[in-house]
Amino acid sequence: MNEFYPTVPNVSYEGTKTDNPMAFRFYNPDEIIVGKTMREHLKFAMAYWHTMCADGTDMFGRGTFCKTYGASDPMDLARRKVYAAMELMDKLQLDYFCFHDADIAPEAETLGETNKRLDEISDLLAEQMKAHNKKLLWGTANCFNHPRFMHGAGTAPNADVFAFAAAKIKKAIELTVKLGGNGYVFWGGREGYETLLNTDMAQELDHMAYLLSLTTEYGRQIGFKGDYYIEPKPKEPTKHQYDFDAATVLGFLRTYGLDKSFKLNIEANHATLAGHTFQHELRVARINNAFGSIDANQGDLLLGWDTDQFPTNAYDTTLCMLEVLEAGGFTNGGLNFDAKTRRGSNTPEDLALSFIAGMDCFALGLRVAQKIREDGRLAQFVRDRYSSYESGIGKRIAQKQATIKELEDYAISLGEVTTNISGRQEYLENLMNSIMFGC
Amino acid sequence: MNEFYPTVPNVSYEGTKTDNPMAFRFYNPDEIIVGKTMREHLKFAMAYWHTMCADGTDMFGRGTFCKTYGASDPMDLARRKVYAAMELMDKLQLDYFCFHDADIAPEAETLGETNKRLDEISDLLAEQMKAHNKKLLWGTANCFNHPRFMHGAGTAPNADVFAFAAAKIKKAIELTVKLGGNGYVFWGGREGYETLLNTDMAQELDHMAYLLSLTTEYGRQIGFKGDYYIEPKPKEPTKHQYDFDAATVLGFLRTYGLDKSFKLNIEANHATLAGHTFQHELRVARINNAFGSIDANQGDLLLGWDTDQFPTNAYDTTLCMLEVLEAGGFTNGGLNFDAKTRRGSNTPEDLALSFIAGMDCFALGLRVAQKIREDGRLAQFVRDRYSSYESGIGKRIAQKQATIKELEDYAISLGEVTTNISGRQEYLENLMNSIMFGC
Amino acid sequence: MNEFYPTVPNVSYEGTKTDNPMAFRFYNPDEIIVGKTMREHLKFAMAYWHTMCADGTDMFGRGTFCKTYGASDPMDLARRKVYAAMELMDKLQLDYFCFHDADIAPEAETLGETNKRLDEISDLLAEQMKAHNKKLLWGTANCFNHPRFMHGAGTAPNADVFAFAAAKIKKAIELTVKLGGNGYVFWGGREGYETLLNTDMAQELDHMAYLLSLTTEYGRQIGFKGDYYIEPKPKEPTKHQYDFDAATVLGFLRTYGLDKSFKLNIEANHATLAGHTFQHELRVARINNAFGSIDANQGDLLLGWDTDQFPTNAYDTTLCMLEVLEAGGFTNGGLNFDAKTRRGSNTPEDLALSFIAGMDCFALGLRVAQKIREDGRLAQFVRDRYSSYESGIGKRIAQKQATIKELEDYAISLGEVTTNISGRQEYLENLMNSIMFGC
Amino acid sequence: MNEFYPTVPNVSYEGTKTDNPMAFRFYNPDEIIVGKTMREHLKFAMAYWHTMCADGTDMFGRGTFCKTYGASDPMDLARRKVYAAMELMDKLQLDYFCFHDADIAPEAETLGETNKRLDEISDLLAEQMKAHNKKLLWGTANCFNHPRFMHGAGTAPNADVFAFAAAKIKKAIELTVKLGGNGYVFWGGREGYETLLNTDMAQELDHMAYLLSLTTEYGRQIGFKGDYYIEPKPKEPTKHQYDFDAATVLGFLRTYGLDKSFKLNIEANHATLAGHTFQHELRVARINNAFGSIDANQGDLLLGWDTDQFPTNAYDTTLCMLEVLEAGGFTNGGLNFDAKTRRGSNTPEDLALSFIAGMDCFALGLRVAQKIREDGRLAQFVRDRYSSYESGIGKRIAQKQATIKELEDYAISLGEVTTNISGRQEYLENLMNSIMFGC
Repeated sequence: MNEFYPTVPNVSYEGTKTDNPMAFRFYNPDEIIVGKTMREHLKFAMAYWHTMCADGTDMFGRGTFCKTYGASDPMDLARRKVYAAMELMDKLQLDYFCFHDADIAPEAETLGETNKRLDEISDLLAEQMKAHNKKLLWGTANCFNHPRFMHGAGTAPNADVFAFAAAKIKKAIELTVKLGGNGYVFWGGREGYETLLNTDMAQELDHMAYLLSLTTEYGRQIGFKGDYYIEPKPKEPTKHQYDFDAATVLGFLRTYGLDKSFKLNIEANHATLAGHTFQHELRVARINNAFGSIDANQGDLLLGWDTDQFPTNAYDTTLCMLEVLEAGGFTNGGLNFDAKTRRGSNTPEDLALSFIAGMDCFALGLRVAQKIREDGRLAQFVRDRYSSYESGIGKRIAQKQATIKELEDYAISLGEVTTNISGRQEYLENLMNSIMFGC
Repeated sequence: MNEFYPTVPNVSYEGTKTDNPMAFRFYNPDEIIVGKTMREHLKFAMAYWHTMCADGTDMFGRGTFCKTYGASDPMDLARRKVYAAMELMDKLQLDYFCFHDADIAPEAETLGETNKRLDEISDLLAEQMKAHNKKLLWGTANCFNHPRFMHGAGTAPNADVFAFAAAKIKKAIELTVKLGGNGYVFWGGREGYETLLNTDMAQELDHMAYLLSLTTEYGRQIGFKGDYYIEPKPKEPTKHQYDFDAATVLGFLRTYGLDKSFKLNIEANHATLAGHTFQHELRVARINNAFGSIDANQGDLLLGWDTDQFPTNAYDTTLCMLEVLEAGGFTNGGLNFDAKTRRGSNTPEDLALSFIAGMDCFALGLRVAQKIREDGRLAQFVRDRYSSYESGIGKRIAQKQATIKELEDYAISLGEVTTNISGRQEYLENLMNSIMFGC
Repeated sequence: MNEFYPTVPNVSYEGTKTDNPMAFRFYNPDEIIVGKTMREHLKFAMAYWHTMCADGTDMFGRGTFCKTYGASDPMDLARRKVYAAMELMDKLQLDYFCFHDADIAPEAETLGETNKRLDEISDLLAEQMKAHNKKLLWGTANCFNHPRFMHGAGTAPNADVFAFAAAKIKKAIELTVKLGGNGYVFWGGREGYETLLNTDMAQELDHMAYLLSLTTEYGRQIGFKGDYYIEPKPKEPTKHQYDFDAATVLGFLRTYGLDKSFKLNIEANHATLAGHTFQHELRVARINNAFGSIDANQGDLLLGWDTDQFPTNAYDTTLCMLEVLEAGGFTNGGLNFDAKTRRGSNTPEDLALSFIAGMDCFALGLRVAQKIREDGRLAQFVRDRYSSYESGIGKRIAQKQATIKELEDYAISLGEVTTNISGRQEYLENLMNSIMFGC
Repeated sequence: MNEFYPTVPNVSYEGTKTDNPMAFRFYNPDEIIVGKTMREHLKFAMAYWHTMCADGTDMFGRGTFCKTYGASDPMDLARRKVYAAMELMDKLQLDYFCFHDADIAPEAETLGETNKRLDEISDLLAEQMKAHNKKLLWGTANCFNHPRFMHGAGTAPNADVFAFAAAKIKKAIELTVKLGGNGYVFWGGREGYETLLNTDMAQELDHMAYLLSLTTEYGRQIGFKGDYYIEPKPKEPTKHQYDFDAATVLGFLRTYGLDKSFKLNIEANHATLAGHTFQHELRVARINNAFGSIDANQGDLLLGWDTDQFPTNAYDTTLCMLEVLEAGGFTNGGLNFDAKTRRGSNTPEDLALSFIAGMDCFALGLRVAQKIREDGRLAQFVRDRYSSYESGIGKRIAQKQATIKELEDYAISLGEVTTNISGRQEYLENLMNSIMFGC
């Protein structure tokens, strides 16, 4: 195959003094930070859909970015995308990728034919992954684009659609296993509703849980050892998506006894659409032992839709990496750039520049997060703040031994609380700035 | 006692033809709608805090509504409020009220003194409730106003505050039992965080669960037979409130094994602040067997704070009453007007006019909801829409008997789905309009 | 031509008692309401783009609604759409339509070829409009879909694009004149920015004003007698659209001396995306003598993008029609349904049912608005509220004769204001309900 | 007077290596950056209301921060606040402050008595300002807190209120002149509406314009040489504030011929409440020659109310200072910290730590902004992007000489645009990061 990105050079670390736009300033892949290389810490992945497929179409305009790769027909296109993907990942030092079934091979007239196409392309992918030493962070099935899924997949009010979704997910799990994937993601797609006037929410949720059971059990049967993830999102495309946010998903999983079977794939832009910070969603996942993987992007908090921008806000990446480090780092998960170049950034160079922007911003976040941990003041502040629970009545509360009568007697003996201390929010924000910008 | 609301007459049903602003047009308390009086269906309650206490203060201005009732000192004020409340409830045909401890008696220097004040005023309340035939829909404790709760109550990083909160809730439950309350509400108040930089969310949630266990068990020990409710709210006063929405609360309760102990008190304005419709939150509660009670108000969807307006949108009240009727009606719960007159509506007549507006709007909602049920087309549409799950492969899915292989074979045999049908959202919205406005 | 909508009957008024979904309940076209037929009051228009072209594609899925009309090639499709449009408008009693150049004929390789296509199709349109007695409410040019407009049209940082936009608008105005259009709309499309990091806002606004001058003057030269409208929208597709809302547009027009040349086309969904009510935007237009035309749809206030739903909220249509009646009714403008069936409402019958829903809801709004005006209490309340400006110091203020010293002396003599009265918001909301639902 | 802030030391610049929380890391007041000291560039001001008065009260709780200064009565308190303010400003190296009339002296029973109190306290302020070398950045009148303003001030539906507002503003301008103020701010307060059902918007806006004319002319008569500012805010306290955003205010001023008389005071938190970035509002002000002064704070984009937090986001302060430098720096304006410590940050040390956080963040922003300007790549990118307007058809467009026919001919000769280039948003964001974090 020819070169697909002739204007994109091999990108490497040149430090902060370089003037080269096609270089990393903060991401030094083999530099060791507390016992692991940055590469191991960050586990960057390319999203096949945005990077290889999306052409800049939006609701008000057609594509601006040519992603036809000189192909003559859909299957030729599918094959060329494999080679192009490897080239781009090599040049950008990306070790992982993620994909939907529909990203790698075009759907055919029937499910049976589609599956054959998936078999063919996944053979090629497997071969090329080996040749280029690339790994699959996770796979998934696209159960939302096709008209058949217009009312949902597992939650469709139509049993044929449910069956179709089950079959597609079965195949996508098989492909994931075949390609040695570390994870498999369930993103809700159209699992939600447009109006309660036509919706039986209870039945739909029951079906969704059943679909999750069926498919994840099947994966284990065929040898899948990785993690299953659910990816919360509150709205878009449907008015209400059932996997609204981390807390909602965890509650749903517990209701159906599925909480041991899943971790979460947290996306920054989905967090903010739900009214939460990215850090909040990561924290919820972490303290529920459900921290899994991350869709690394950013939204625009003044816009109400999923903009999927490449992440360039160092506050967000720092707080994200703090949570990741607190969680002990990634196991099967990683940082998948579920991000697309802006519609007006329509060249191959923009692709490279966008990945560089995102990778450097996360590398910077990792560096700062580690400095915050070494510094120790932030963590110490939190420990001190809760220290009243380490002795006396506080310890009895923490150990769940205090009785209600005992607490009342204690409170009455106090008369009033005199031990409240400031939360020092502004100091802590400034402390973070002084570490971030303190050189 | 003198009359407190001399300009407010006894308000009664006069039908839609009346010109009298001080009359009900839709609320006919003793009219029977499918086996119950409207009074029994709707169970309207007055919120002591907004109605008896709140004076129109907002973040940019002081009070506009004089609620001193001619009192000479705080305890005199507390007593006068009891009489005023009874007078207003009588005039407006309100059978129920709800209160926080702090609404009925002012806090004293010490907890012990405060409790004595509560004893005194609750004696008077009990006496007057009997005299006026009024009932307590639910009681609660104010664990957010006082500076001691500035970092939360059960989730405070200070054990003394936890103890204080436990003692206050204990007392509030005792008062609720004493006054024959049907319910007890836990609203998060400041149970949340301002910044994760200073917050141990895991520990805070543990403490919150423990506080709920301790206090609700105590209530049962002293004979409380009513329902415990948690009232979701996503933000305000804290940046993130732990009881974000119905789904989050249900998930939290399940995590700590508390899901059998609580129902939900759904507030319209809190629903929309969380990005949901009022109906959505009611539906989530209902299908999780957690439908309990309702804080009847409305927010302004173009504003980002809790406006607590009196409900006057008939679409919302209709959809609410549909959910209530589907749930089989209220048991211990009811419709509490957690609503305040606008700051510029600062007269006793505005109080009456606001309750009339809200009560009539819910009465109208009940009438329309019942018409929708009688009409039957909406419910039939939903049943038909899911009918594919009543036979064949659909039935096997619904009964959780289908295997993944069976589903795949079925899907492959289909080739493609050909049975999708329109969701008919616009038709259904029009159908609702035609019933609402069809006279 | 064959019939394109065989399942859609001729829809007519049957009153509120009918069970026929394919009938109007409130829209009785020839019924006279204060001196004009409903048809004349409402001037309903079909949006060619949504109705004839849009196939349900969204950001997460391809089309669900087949709108190929059995065509063999793009120009055949364009011709068939003309016949189909006439059939649908006849069946639904729609007298008007609106279009973009690109809606009626596909773009060719060059501008010159495209213009020839437009000539051909507009000949057919003119012929069929005459045959079916249909009128053009307004025309416009699509300067946002094609990749050439990815950075804007008149505000593009590329002079070639500016020239292209000017040429397209010139042609679209010519087409509008040819088809006897009553108006011509400028909707910003991509006139805005994605990031200020790459934007010279001052220069872009200068260019935009120049483009408006050039094109509108040209229209007058070739005999256009109708109204020019700007249609405000705050965001989407760009992060910031220059025509943010009515006030912003009016300010921009005044800055460039263009305020006498334009009226506004107010869209409900754009109003709410800007943080305003629909009524607010109409009011701003009206009191600035800029009330022109209306894009009749509705958004979902819990979603952050332009959902363009068919309008079914009777509060909104009532308040809208109140403003329209206060403005003296439409002159050149009308009610254009810039609305699309939901992606899951994918049949021709849904098209009809959606128009019926929207037309009936506006007809209901007109009926209620007229009842409110006849009732008179609302208007009287407002007059009374400002009556202090009709005499004494108030009159001197209203006539701008009071001096600052005089006002100070007056205020000091008052000592304090004792004449404030309640704004009675809740009463007024209830009054509106009692008229809406009072049968 | 005693020391009021014994725990707050004199704060000075110690550089980024210091561990001292009570030190500046980036703000080195007398360091020269391109020809001016940082002190002169930044012109930091203390907001009297938040810093000296606000006690942490919010809608759900009373004050947490004792600001009684050991006073025995209201006028004693007013005097003590003057001394405390000077002490705090000295310790924090703040040269300026801003105030409302009501911040410095408590309102009395009558306007006449209130004015006498203002005279007394302003004498003391003048004396102390001289002694401590402090300056008044701007003054203003509080026309929103008192119940008399519950329906607005200049836009009140009550002429007595209008007169009262005029008299108060007259006095506040006199005080501003007396204290040598560089500016006078009009913030809308309650100039807006709660519901259009009771509002005559046209009349209210007329009155507002008249009040602005009357009072600003009066100021010039008594020798005010500074700038008049309007401060945009979209909502809160009223549902719709007339001064919604910069564009709306500029449009309003032009409508009434007042645009030459005012500049804008842009507040970060108000910008985001209006759906804009802080930078956007500054840009709009700048390109309309209306850049005046800044209320330096930050909001929380996930919350819907005015949180008035101390600014700690270096992206925002950098982009702000870029606009300030582009505008040529402040003339009469400055950076007023319209910011309050969080309710849980309730100690004098928090006050100091918060100002340090905000001042350092703006000092950092100034440093980075200057680096960006020195670097030059960002500005060059923008210039290059619009270079097609410097010759040929582009130059004729920019000079407004191109005719519509000429543009059409040119476009037709092109056939299609082939000169579009990427907007490179991600590259530019990364460039900004590399300068910010490049040490």
